[in-house]
Amino acid sequence: MPSPTLSDRFGIAVRRRRLAAGLSQENLAERAGLHPTYVSMVERGVRNPTLDVAARIAKSLKVGLPQLIQEAEGLRAERGGRK
Amino acid sequence: MPSPTLSDRFGIAVRRRRLAAGLSQENLAERAGLHPTYVSMVERGVRNPTLDVAARIAKSLKVGLPQLIQEAEGLRAERGGRK
Repeated sequence: MPSPTLSDRFGIAVRRRRLAAGLSQENLAERAGLHPTYVSMVERGVRNPTLDVAARIAKSLKVGLPQLIQEAEGLRAERGGRK
Repeated sequence: MPSPTLSDRFGIAVRRRRLAAGLSQENLAERAGLHPTYVSMVERGVRNPTLDVAARIAKSLKVGLPQLIQEAEGLRAERGGRK
């Protein structure tokens, strides 16, 4: 299988952070000024967010974007685990 | 004047790294698989790159994307200095 892209891993890192913060996709979307469907697509790696949108998501999760990207980069190819 | 966005600052950080590495925009574009015009637009903050493109640019500059974003975030609102 193809190696996951950064945006794939970024989505997983966002989902983890969001769940750890006890937020729904709707909560996160509202904080970041995004549509809930867009948040869902980012988490699934379907959309590759721009730097500015990624920064808004990170800020809404109260984490720095460099830190969130580091977490994403540290993820193994573990898509397909829990849906 | 409006506060520069992350993509504005990212462009400045990319340009600094590129010049420090002795690369032309064409060199960087070729390494990253991008069009030179696109690299120019990213450097000027005209285009807000996606995470995956930003990662390709960082890799081509032999720097981690988290590091490059940290450098961008650390920049003051110093656009409009040297053209």
